[in-house]
Amino acid sequence: MLNKEIRLAGRPAGMPTLDNFNIVDADITQLNDGEVSVRTLYISVDPYLRGRMREGRSYVPPFEVGEVIVSGVVGEVVESRAPEFAPGDIVTGMLGWRLYNVARAPELRKVDPRVAPITTALGVLGIPGLTAYFGLLDIGKPKEGETVVVSGAAGAVGTTVCQIAKIKGCRAVGIAGSDEKNQYLTSELGVDAAINYKSPEMSQALKEACPNRIDVYFDNVGGEISDAVLPLLNQGARIILCGQISLYNLDKPDVGPRPQPALLINRALMKGFIITDYAARFGEGVMNLAQWLVAGKLKYAETVVEGFENTPQAFIGLFSGDNLGKQIVKVA
Amino acid sequence: MLNKEIRLAGRPAGMPTLDNFNIVDADITQLNDGEVSVRTLYISVDPYLRGRMREGRSYVPPFEVGEVIVSGVVGEVVESRAPEFAPGDIVTGMLGWRLYNVARAPELRKVDPRVAPITTALGVLGIPGLTAYFGLLDIGKPKEGETVVVSGAAGAVGTTVCQIAKIKGCRAVGIAGSDEKNQYLTSELGVDAAINYKSPEMSQALKEACPNRIDVYFDNVGGEISDAVLPLLNQGARIILCGQISLYNLDKPDVGPRPQPALLINRALMKGFIITDYAARFGEGVMNLAQWLVAGKLKYAETVVEGFENTPQAFIGLFSGDNLGKQIVKVA
Repeated sequence: MLNKEIRLAGRPAGMPTLDNFNIVDADITQLNDGEVSVRTLYISVDPYLRGRMREGRSYVPPFEVGEVIVSGVVGEVVESRAPEFAPGDIVTGMLGWRLYNVARAPELRKVDPRVAPITTALGVLGIPGLTAYFGLLDIGKPKEGETVVVSGAAGAVGTTVCQIAKIKGCRAVGIAGSDEKNQYLTSELGVDAAINYKSPEMSQALKEACPNRIDVYFDNVGGEISDAVLPLLNQGARIILCGQISLYNLDKPDVGPRPQPALLINRALMKGFIITDYAARFGEGVMNLAQWLVAGKLKYAETVVEGFENTPQAFIGLFSGDNLGKQIVKVA
Repeated sequence: MLNKEIRLAGRPAGMPTLDNFNIVDADITQLNDGEVSVRTLYISVDPYLRGRMREGRSYVPPFEVGEVIVSGVVGEVVESRAPEFAPGDIVTGMLGWRLYNVARAPELRKVDPRVAPITTALGVLGIPGLTAYFGLLDIGKPKEGETVVVSGAAGAVGTTVCQIAKIKGCRAVGIAGSDEKNQYLTSELGVDAAINYKSPEMSQALKEACPNRIDVYFDNVGGEISDAVLPLLNQGARIILCGQISLYNLDKPDVGPRPQPALLINRALMKGFIITDYAARFGEGVMNLAQWLVAGKLKYAETVVEGFENTPQAFIGLFSGDNLGKQIVKVA
């Protein structure tokens, strides 16, 4: 049984390239008691991984050069020395970019294929869905009739945020990078208005799409998109800082209009968060997301790349917006 | 009985000048039932008034050109047609820059001269003290042993914030504009370290003053001072946006490093507020501030300018940091 793994070959300077990754042969470790061997079926690639490829202080330690990249994986148990898992079980966890991983039982969670397709454990019923759920509801606290603006609206988190905003009776306005994505948001997901941030009239279009101004801004992107949002804030607005994908590949601090005056005059809140802070409430989140999914109130999109060796390219593609919804790599 | 009033003669462009104000003779209005005539004793000049001299959207409507400026006033009742007030009572309220104001009774609050000097109703026991109290405790939520950094530390709000931080068992670090002010902060108020923001080594000095980084940042100033604070935030840091005095006289948006990445990687909160949101809790705030004052745990400084006609100059002086503690005009 041949194993392979993908390591960080070097730290990206600016936009990551294929040279930053090594695909190498690897052994399959012998199992100890309490361990499980998992064959990778799907790998999640996520923008936040770019932050872990940089040296320095963040909320998770950086990957070391030479280390295997770790992200969300869905796989099948092939061997188990833990009573909780048996061969054939579908599981998910934060695992290495490997064909086979050995994991300790508490690192894994079973996925029930009867509830929804197992890839949803990496998307709408996984970390991206939970990020949308807790970020929007716990920090954003949207009230019926308010206007919620979402940047990165066509991504895994953004599509879910837009739909939860609609479920809560809000006006949802999405900002994404292509007319096709925006067509999907309005036609398929029921988003009230969608704006292409590549259009030169972005600020004007946003203003027109938000006749009652903006109460909640769920920000996945940052930079100039946020500059256009800030002048439209309502009193008491809430800004959820979920990601700043427009800045991840910059080598020096991004410069722009400071947002403090807009926050001050509107008594607004801006808050960064990391989804693991909500770990104790994941059950509540997954239950609600699954109920909305089953009821047809929540849809999801996936962009699937085939082949383990294409994982780095799928990751790199996130930064040019290649994905609609969740970007996944199908391994086996 | 001659009355005078100070009107906004024109909107300031950049730093306000004396030309932006008119001092004119005025009538004394006849009292209606429920009204009180108040002779001005002290006028409070405050940085936020600059915002009201600008046209456009903010949390309070702008002053119109030709309108009398309104701010905190302490005065003596000279005539009353309201049962709550009698001649000789000392009162405070938001009143016009006039020698005599006519006010409706609910606009006024009695000041007890036996508790503390009556000027404290404009400072440590008034809006600036309450701003410090609720901003720091309700938004900042400082915990014992944490590091609290305060910009505009030698002003009316800042001096109070520094001392409440000490009362709560925090390390307090003040940032102010002169060595004399910083000497006052450390020697008189017990602030742990004070930094002169005009020093070219400000960032380095701040880093050295905060060996455990920064948990709470009470921001009265903004701009480059905040740029120096942001890289030092701890996980879960809280930033209270109270003022942005460094920006009030700029005619175009201030540009600098965007703070969102620092907020994101530290899961930090930044929140603007206006003290009137806490009106229902003013009693609690004044009671605690007064107890600390009586117990000698809370000190205050005042800078007093004499003469009604010097009110505009006292206001202008705020922006060059002429004041230590609360800037007050003594009228009579």
